[in-house]
Amino acid sequence: MGALDQLYDHSLALLTDLYQLTMAYGYWKLGMADTEASFHLNFRKHPFGGGFTVACGLHEAIEFLKRMRFDRSDLDYLATLEGNDGKPLFDRGFLDYLGKFELACDIDAMPEGTAVFPYEPLVRVMGPLLQAQLLETPLLNLLNFSTLIATKAARICLAAKGEPVLEFGLRRAQGIDGGVTASRAAFVGGCAATSNVLAGKLFGIPVKGTHAHSWVMAFGDELEAFKAYAQAMPNNCVFLVDTYNTLNGVAHAAEVGKWLRSQAHEMVGIRLDSGDLAYLSIEARKVLDDAGFPRAAILASNELDETLIESLHQQGAKVGVWGVGTRLATGGDTPALGGVYKLSAIRKPDDQWEYKIKLSEQTVKTSIPGILQVRRFVGSDGLFVADAIYDVPTGIQTPCLIIDPTDQARRKRIDADARPEDVLLPIFRKGSLVYVPPDLPSVQRRTSDQLDRLHPTIKRLVNPHRYPAGLEARLKTIRMEMIERAQWPGG
Amino acid sequence: MGALDQLYDHSLALLTDLYQLTMAYGYWKLGMADTEASFHLNFRKHPFGGGFTVACGLHEAIEFLKRMRFDRSDLDYLATLEGNDGKPLFDRGFLDYLGKFELACDIDAMPEGTAVFPYEPLVRVMGPLLQAQLLETPLLNLLNFSTLIATKAARICLAAKGEPVLEFGLRRAQGIDGGVTASRAAFVGGCAATSNVLAGKLFGIPVKGTHAHSWVMAFGDELEAFKAYAQAMPNNCVFLVDTYNTLNGVAHAAEVGKWLRSQAHEMVGIRLDSGDLAYLSIEARKVLDDAGFPRAAILASNELDETLIESLHQQGAKVGVWGVGTRLATGGDTPALGGVYKLSAIRKPDDQWEYKIKLSEQTVKTSIPGILQVRRFVGSDGLFVADAIYDVPTGIQTPCLIIDPTDQARRKRIDADARPEDVLLPIFRKGSLVYVPPDLPSVQRRTSDQLDRLHPTIKRLVNPHRYPAGLEARLKTIRMEMIERAQWPGG
Repeated sequence: MGALDQLYDHSLALLTDLYQLTMAYGYWKLGMADTEASFHLNFRKHPFGGGFTVACGLHEAIEFLKRMRFDRSDLDYLATLEGNDGKPLFDRGFLDYLGKFELACDIDAMPEGTAVFPYEPLVRVMGPLLQAQLLETPLLNLLNFSTLIATKAARICLAAKGEPVLEFGLRRAQGIDGGVTASRAAFVGGCAATSNVLAGKLFGIPVKGTHAHSWVMAFGDELEAFKAYAQAMPNNCVFLVDTYNTLNGVAHAAEVGKWLRSQAHEMVGIRLDSGDLAYLSIEARKVLDDAGFPRAAILASNELDETLIESLHQQGAKVGVWGVGTRLATGGDTPALGGVYKLSAIRKPDDQWEYKIKLSEQTVKTSIPGILQVRRFVGSDGLFVADAIYDVPTGIQTPCLIIDPTDQARRKRIDADARPEDVLLPIFRKGSLVYVPPDLPSVQRRTSDQLDRLHPTIKRLVNPHRYPAGLEARLKTIRMEMIERAQWPGG
Repeated sequence: MGALDQLYDHSLALLTDLYQLTMAYGYWKLGMADTEASFHLNFRKHPFGGGFTVACGLHEAIEFLKRMRFDRSDLDYLATLEGNDGKPLFDRGFLDYLGKFELACDIDAMPEGTAVFPYEPLVRVMGPLLQAQLLETPLLNLLNFSTLIATKAARICLAAKGEPVLEFGLRRAQGIDGGVTASRAAFVGGCAATSNVLAGKLFGIPVKGTHAHSWVMAFGDELEAFKAYAQAMPNNCVFLVDTYNTLNGVAHAAEVGKWLRSQAHEMVGIRLDSGDLAYLSIEARKVLDDAGFPRAAILASNELDETLIESLHQQGAKVGVWGVGTRLATGGDTPALGGVYKLSAIRKPDDQWEYKIKLSEQTVKTSIPGILQVRRFVGSDGLFVADAIYDVPTGIQTPCLIIDPTDQARRKRIDADARPEDVLLPIFRKGSLVYVPPDLPSVQRRTSDQLDRLHPTIKRLVNPHRYPAGLEARLKTIRMEMIERAQWPGG
């Protein structure tokens, strides 16, 4: 059973912007509901100033799509909506039509854990115009968020250089599934465990946790509190040492660690949650080593992110486990991936595709026409060489030329000997699920494998090298011609 | 029926950090589960660099608490967790105890829509230590997020100076109820409507929406697209004019507006979604006015927030309705309110309260002991004069002195003639709901009324005046003495 099934009882078909339904109504009324259309979901810029993004959220999207239907209460609600003349917005006939909604689209998507780059479609939806339009908001909601958090987690795990990262964000996450979904995406991005018990139950993610400051405060003094904790739960001892004075706290932890040993148990470690983590971890390490606990872990938390972790490493901090909360579960100063979902082609009555483009007052917002796929080229060393976004009907051959969508001076020739892989896979065909999602540990391994195959300079956290991902030359020509025609329609 | 009931089918008792359960286990095992304790939820800094915060999320907290129980699948899951010796983390007896969990706490809280200031408790929980501890994570999750978004919405509505603000954030929100809960909180903060249909259905918030770029692209040209839309839905016409060329788009909208008039309908307005919104809105206004549509609204969207809206006003932009998405639904560059939940007192076997304090390596993180309430003083003009955080057993009298919790040089004397109001209200007594939540429009009015009663300088978006909210002098003395005792225990 999927997580949404467990969390959500009712239909989520109304989890959409009203304009999707008013457009759907228009298409229905004008007899265009079944016109075949193609849409793509992509983003224009990596989050966090990074050089890569990790695709995530397909799990949630599949769960949503599998159960998408309009129930009686949805239709009754829509029947109450009025226009500016006080009359109903929707005809009853349209609501009856919605009541019979059954997904009929072909949907292709990047598997979760795939490295993805600006302008590459994460999802392609082909099917009846009305349906494909209705999917815009929920697909954006679900993929934008999970992709953002998986990417943040991957960056944090890169900064941690293999030391385990624990996700602790639930208390500051944006709502209930803001927390639950963030925990899953953080695991996809590489986190070792979460504090979120519900995410543990729903997804099988390892859960971690021991005690808070309140535990220490509930006792007469810190030593008494640590002893009491060790007695109650000797097989799960990480002592939080900064309730009163951090280094005194470390000494108390070591004292109780010795008692634990006398009981045939071993202290797991200590946690630092405030103050100068570089200084305190180095001092704490000495105390623990001198007391005979060289393997006791030092866990650090307190508004951490990839920048602080990198800096603490540079300062020689002796931290072995990183607890990361707010800035991981919310994305920190970049709380949204700016994914968009754009119409790219409509099937004409003569069965030919008519390609579509949206211009904009801002060039970066100009869309890409066609029926798109991403071909990734892999070098003989296994590293990713480049990605070509290509138009499926137009095709692609190697050697080929790719051109950056926002800067046509940036182009790269791809040799014929690079091994090609098409990245979008079939997920739904005519509304039926045809994809067997991998289990969560496999998704996490895919992330790690994909990142291993990017050149290290692309994974630099600040000012990374730009991975070559561009439009295949003929697609680029199609797009430029359409831009010119749209700008000078009579020209 | 509450929104959580409609959204969530299963128990959410595991929506917590594991350490809450390991501490609960410890308290249970040591016979401390029923020791009476007092906790407070507060934050240390206004979000967004502002001068006020709007309390929100009590609705969600009540829904959560009403249905909090551990079901069989929760307990079965907890039984699978293991410590570092491979043995179960929890005794079966403890799981049986959890299975009988029934809320028994007294909970007081600020009503939604209340202006709240740093260090003031938004919620006070008094009850069995084990229970009060378990509530930490869900209360923080639910109140942090809604309070953040209600505050952001209030700031944006202040910048809009009475012009309607529509919340459009679902596609970039942090997950499903990241979107749904943000829509509710945005309405509490002052938004006029949302694009989110599910939020409309669940909460009765007005919903708005017309068409996207894809509608325009689905037709041969823009004029044809606007005409088709007007035919399909003549009572809901806001034309999005920037698919190809904005000012051409405005002319097309005006042309179709005239046709609508000939059909006894009236165009609502146009929407600008890219480019220079100041310039384009001024030019669009002229086109619409000249065409005979002086009352057609100009709606602007595109990564707006309070700063951009204020700037557009200063530039003389002719925008009448503001569509705000990402930065409202996520909080933008401040995606989390840093709320914390701290133990402040424990009832001793002799029935006396023992006050508790947490020091920290960082002074701002030092907690406040006692059983706290907030007394707000209102001047004869109805404006709020100052807030005193006071200890209920110690009491408060006027005139009194209040002292800033982080800067003891900042103090204010409150005169006896200021009218006092205690802000925390009883919500649960012995686990039973004793509070009748107001309907959502009343909550929105409360926000507006509270903000009206703050001096304008406190509502300045940047570098606001600091509202006087401090510790009542005797509470401040209690706290300082406890800090000294904790720092020099033998001293």
